[in-house]
Amino acid sequence: MTYKPPNRAPGGAPPAGPAALRRANLSLVLRELRDHRSLSRAHIAEATGLHRATVSNLMADLLERRLVREVGVEHVGAVGRPRRAVALHGAHVGALGMEINVDYIAVHGTDLSGRVLVERRVVYDAMGSGPDRAVRRLGLVAKEAVEAMRRAGASPAGIVVAVPGLVDVARGVVTLAPNLYWHDLPLADQLSSLLGPLRVPVRVDNDANLAALAEYTSGVAAGTPYLVYLTGEVGVGGGIILGGELLRGADGFSGEVGHLQVDPNGAQCGCGRIGCWETKVGLAALVRAAMPEQAYGLPGMPVPDPGERVADLARGLASGDRRMTTAVAQVGEWLGLGGSILANLFNPRVIVIGGYFASLAQWLLPHAQDQLQRLVVAAPAARCRFVASTLGFGAASRGAASMVVSDIIDDPTTIMDSPPRPAPY
Amino acid sequence: MTYKPPNRAPGGAPPAGPAALRRANLSLVLRELRDHRSLSRAHIAEATGLHRATVSNLMADLLERRLVREVGVEHVGAVGRPRRAVALHGAHVGALGMEINVDYIAVHGTDLSGRVLVERRVVYDAMGSGPDRAVRRLGLVAKEAVEAMRRAGASPAGIVVAVPGLVDVARGVVTLAPNLYWHDLPLADQLSSLLGPLRVPVRVDNDANLAALAEYTSGVAAGTPYLVYLTGEVGVGGGIILGGELLRGADGFSGEVGHLQVDPNGAQCGCGRIGCWETKVGLAALVRAAMPEQAYGLPGMPVPDPGERVADLARGLASGDRRMTTAVAQVGEWLGLGGSILANLFNPRVIVIGGYFASLAQWLLPHAQDQLQRLVVAAPAARCRFVASTLGFGAASRGAASMVVSDIIDDPTTIMDSPPRPAPY
Repeated sequence: MTYKPPNRAPGGAPPAGPAALRRANLSLVLRELRDHRSLSRAHIAEATGLHRATVSNLMADLLERRLVREVGVEHVGAVGRPRRAVALHGAHVGALGMEINVDYIAVHGTDLSGRVLVERRVVYDAMGSGPDRAVRRLGLVAKEAVEAMRRAGASPAGIVVAVPGLVDVARGVVTLAPNLYWHDLPLADQLSSLLGPLRVPVRVDNDANLAALAEYTSGVAAGTPYLVYLTGEVGVGGGIILGGELLRGADGFSGEVGHLQVDPNGAQCGCGRIGCWETKVGLAALVRAAMPEQAYGLPGMPVPDPGERVADLARGLASGDRRMTTAVAQVGEWLGLGGSILANLFNPRVIVIGGYFASLAQWLLPHAQDQLQRLVVAAPAARCRFVASTLGFGAASRGAASMVVSDIIDDPTTIMDSPPRPAPY
Repeated sequence: MTYKPPNRAPGGAPPAGPAALRRANLSLVLRELRDHRSLSRAHIAEATGLHRATVSNLMADLLERRLVREVGVEHVGAVGRPRRAVALHGAHVGALGMEINVDYIAVHGTDLSGRVLVERRVVYDAMGSGPDRAVRRLGLVAKEAVEAMRRAGASPAGIVVAVPGLVDVARGVVTLAPNLYWHDLPLADQLSSLLGPLRVPVRVDNDANLAALAEYTSGVAAGTPYLVYLTGEVGVGGGIILGGELLRGADGFSGEVGHLQVDPNGAQCGCGRIGCWETKVGLAALVRAAMPEQAYGLPGMPVPDPGERVADLARGLASGDRRMTTAVAQVGEWLGLGGSILANLFNPRVIVIGGYFASLAQWLLPHAQDQLQRLVVAAPAARCRFVASTLGFGAASRGAASMVVSDIIDDPTTIMDSPPRPAPY
């Protein structure tokens, strides 16, 4: 059982037909509540433009299904009768986010209101295991998480899995995840059959997209409507938030920053192309520049223990190691150059950097920011700055969980399975 | 009198307050009519989710103001009474688009339904004239166009002026137009005072943004929701359509493609930076590569008669001139490289090329498309192709006129100045 993202019509075209309209109205009400903690029915009617009778009817439905709850009384002004307020509830509705990356599997499970129920990181050599074993392991970790969430009273309404690579979101297929050696892997289907009797729908998405979503909902630049997220690992990924929405593009392949060609005379990349941005700012490039005795991550060479390499670098930089300082300055400049391409094209307010970029931010950022200022055409009018993520390695799984929540709010009928009562919408 | 773009809330948040709600509902109705030629009130109610009484009330208002008109009868099925259909009208409401560029001023005036009333291109050396004289000339051309449109029965509700440079859209200020030598020019205010008694509000926008809009509404790839437009002139500009909407970014400075750094060891650009894309694919770069005896457009050097240079090139290429063929192949590859950056980041379905790129498309495109396929990470899954624009030099002014129309449809109350009657929305 894979699950389809709800249809969001571009340009906000109105829904057609009564069922779609009711779905849209339920969603409108839940979205108001998510954005405002608690509101009276009258406030919701005013904010959404729906009739009060419609709001009351929708609310009865949502209350009955425990997606909202009464939270006492709202007094407006000195006169007038007190109005009962409602808030998002859904403590029984779970949202499970997962991430599989080169050397770990991460889990982040919440209820509908965002309360964290499960959080876990499992060290796992996904790169060395091949897809079959990795998917089986992912299935085991998912099963445990679902069971833990059910024990905590929340049954997951969906699972979103973050993967470092190109994902065909509609089909749940990993088209290409070079650092995992995955190719055309129907991950959603495979994981669904492994979870069989648990019957939780599964969806797959790009890790940087999901981390961008986490940054937008709960990170250091939360709520910044034009935001680019970059993750520095062995590979370099990007997720783009524009007007508060994740950019997907025509096929779901937007934000592919790692293989932008930035140097036509540069080195060969693992992907076979020349001068990709990843060859300048990926972790392997930094490790080799800082510790030239290592063949770390050259095309065909392994990238063992990336976490330890980052810790080595941080120690060396803190002690003022000359070679490392030079290397990090160089990588910082290339980070700024790539950032300037993003800033010239997207005009974001903030570029949030995650992964190892965040761990070494104090050394990378001054160089990156300088270069950004130099190369952005509209600077200083376009005030764009780099900021280090504070979400750590859990960003993608956290974003994955928040995507399940968003999907439920976009179409609450997915978890409201009995037929809706006739209603005057 | 400058005019503000209507507020479009990101994420489609519902409007607040009864006036805003009525505005939004009027807009909803007009948008349906624009997209469907003619519809009955019942159809509009169904498509928008508005009550029939509300639609009838809104429609009475729109009919009274001649923004819509009755267009006969719509029969639905064999049974049921015939329903009267309405269509967008507004023959008395004009939309004036203008463009000022290095060597011409263009005018495109329509009525609300898109019927062309004025179209004109004036050869003018804006580059050599300096901002004061250029703005005065623009004012004269605008005045003539407004008068011609009024004679044709349509009074312009707004003017949008396309400028090749960075525009602060909210303030109507041209922040920087390097090829016109303009800098912090309050064009909207200046043009408004020149038009004084005509009292037509003026707005300014980037030429490539407006041309992208024209491509989306009426070009060779019309209706393609993920579309990038590139214009090749002395400078190179870009406009980005995502999900059917023009991308503006946090400050309105998105799509600045001309000064993306594509070659860290490249030549110096007119902007002072190194290896900008413009130094590889701008018209001056092609002219110098094809005719090395020319110092055409080197930093500080003039770029006389760009149109004639393009005609020379087309003639030479048609006759198989070896040097020109080599030069255009080179420029085509760089065009493909820049296109791959755009495709990797935005994942558009189409990159429409305008300006001289379109004039020489048959020679440029094969090289550009090859390079694009090589460098796009998600190819062939991300099916992106270059297409030559067919709109010619009028693209930006045409897009400017369609932006005036969009603005009216987004907020019809701007041209409905008497107070709205009380209504049950």
